[in-house]
Amino acid sequence: MTRADGTAAQPRIDGLQYARWSEKVFRQMRAGRVDAVHATICYHESFRETVETIVAWNRLFASHADLVFHGVAAADVDHARAQGRTAIFFGAQNPSCLDGDIGLIEVLHRLGLRFLQLTYNNQSLLGTGHAEAEDAGLTRMGREAVAEMNRLGVAIDMSHAGERTTLEAIAASTRPVTVSHANPASWHDVSRNVSDRVLDALRDSGGMLGFSLYPLHLKGGGACTLEAFCTMVARTAERIGVARLGIGSDLCQDQPDSVVEWMRNGRWTKRGAPAAFPDQPEWFRDNRDFDKLAAGLTAAGFDGEEVGMILGGNWRRFFADSFGPGR
Amino acid sequence: MTRADGTAAQPRIDGLQYARWSEKVFRQMRAGRVDAVHATICYHESFRETVETIVAWNRLFASHADLVFHGVAAADVDHARAQGRTAIFFGAQNPSCLDGDIGLIEVLHRLGLRFLQLTYNNQSLLGTGHAEAEDAGLTRMGREAVAEMNRLGVAIDMSHAGERTTLEAIAASTRPVTVSHANPASWHDVSRNVSDRVLDALRDSGGMLGFSLYPLHLKGGGACTLEAFCTMVARTAERIGVARLGIGSDLCQDQPDSVVEWMRNGRWTKRGAPAAFPDQPEWFRDNRDFDKLAAGLTAAGFDGEEVGMILGGNWRRFFADSFGPGR
Repeated sequence: MTRADGTAAQPRIDGLQYARWSEKVFRQMRAGRVDAVHATICYHESFRETVETIVAWNRLFASHADLVFHGVAAADVDHARAQGRTAIFFGAQNPSCLDGDIGLIEVLHRLGLRFLQLTYNNQSLLGTGHAEAEDAGLTRMGREAVAEMNRLGVAIDMSHAGERTTLEAIAASTRPVTVSHANPASWHDVSRNVSDRVLDALRDSGGMLGFSLYPLHLKGGGACTLEAFCTMVARTAERIGVARLGIGSDLCQDQPDSVVEWMRNGRWTKRGAPAAFPDQPEWFRDNRDFDKLAAGLTAAGFDGEEVGMILGGNWRRFFADSFGPGR
Repeated sequence: MTRADGTAAQPRIDGLQYARWSEKVFRQMRAGRVDAVHATICYHESFRETVETIVAWNRLFASHADLVFHGVAAADVDHARAQGRTAIFFGAQNPSCLDGDIGLIEVLHRLGLRFLQLTYNNQSLLGTGHAEAEDAGLTRMGREAVAEMNRLGVAIDMSHAGERTTLEAIAASTRPVTVSHANPASWHDVSRNVSDRVLDALRDSGGMLGFSLYPLHLKGGGACTLEAFCTMVARTAERIGVARLGIGSDLCQDQPDSVVEWMRNGRWTKRGAPAAFPDQPEWFRDNRDFDKLAAGLTAAGFDGEEVGMILGGNWRRFFADSFGPGR
């Protein structure tokens, strides 16, 4: 298959999704030629509950082996391309799955975990999320966790974290760090997006920013245009370089609204308000819309190689840097 | 290092131990030139508790990397020999660690589980243990578990099972089955030992019997002589062949008596009587005593190659047959 956008030389990777996984979604991944997806397996779940999710994934891998498989190494992206399948890489958005036990990072790594967020909105045992009033930075256990993740090859994901915790994690880590799904706050100023200081720290440390397509992270929400989004990507490239950029769409396709309530409220509040998923931009509704992103990025001035880097080539490099044993 | 007993060509493997693991025990393994040990990680524990034991093992592997490492494939026996270390293979003596979920066999396999007993003395979800009055054989879930273990490469261990369940598991399995730690009931008639029917089924299916050195399984208990034990091994070889025989010492070295109470009573009874570990035979107290076994087997008439088979060569073959993915 040739690609009009000139990105055929590089894999296509989404740095964050949490769909209601189904054959339909997997077929859309194939239709969109998405070679690899970082899939969330934990929002507020305990270790035991996270293992239930892994068991459910194992069933999906067995029943849809023609479409998806469990990715654990960067080379699995290449295997996926060669086989016409999509490699699913597990990630946790919350260290709740550690049950407070540093030893469970190694256990979860063995079970395939390749990304771990140090915080999810709130303060955690490891650091502080963006939604807290105060961010006291990386904790004692947070520093232990960063070292253990560096050793094992679990990527440190600072999405949903506070700025200070993010900067301290980047400084503490001996390996590149990612903010897998967020946009620059200079474009759309919400606390879930990232400051220029964080962008510069990602640049200086060889990290990665995955641009989010989740409406709350977009200027104008679901009404944000493809042109506005891609212009923002171009401005970010000017600041931190094309090599630091990827997509982390945060696509929550086909999920009922109860899922966004679980994301927001977990078990930490008894006063959680009803919540609903916002409408996606009409130009990014599912995995088939990566072609539209490619066209938009080209229109924003990126050449074919650069579009390929942003849509997956950079993630492929980050996976290779992140998932092997540490030195 | 040359071995006077002529067994140097084959690895030395113990098919079952549950020591209070320590540097002392690991150094004795090295002194006894034991290349691999099947170590129990579950008696009555839940999945979550079993993971705690795996975490504790990971700490031991990290702190004693010069002496032991986590074995997962037959080739690790050879790596252990080449490196002068001991490969530790995980096994569960009770399917309690499955929490009733067939999907956890795959998860535990991923975490390194290579042996799983279908029952431990009592009736389980999979079959029935030797201590029950009635044995109704392999259950519906038991048949599913056997197929899943065959698929993944988890050895089916029928120690502690009833005769009917054992025979039905051997018949249901497409891969060789073991009774990793027991002796012939024809020699010492307790229900934990195995009948001639079970021995013949192991012979006919290419399985393995690991002879136990636990006093309750020995004729005369701790007073059993090395000569009597090795004569029994020779009689068993006459019935089922040398290739079916190994050692599964059931060594519970340095454990407090509270551990044998946990083994017997778990959480299934409120009326568990106090229990104490019996005294080991003076000729088998720790891993250094494998040399004495070698001498005793030689005295009982086995040649050097046969002694090597019984002390590890046969287990090496069984590991190779058992631990890869099923066909």
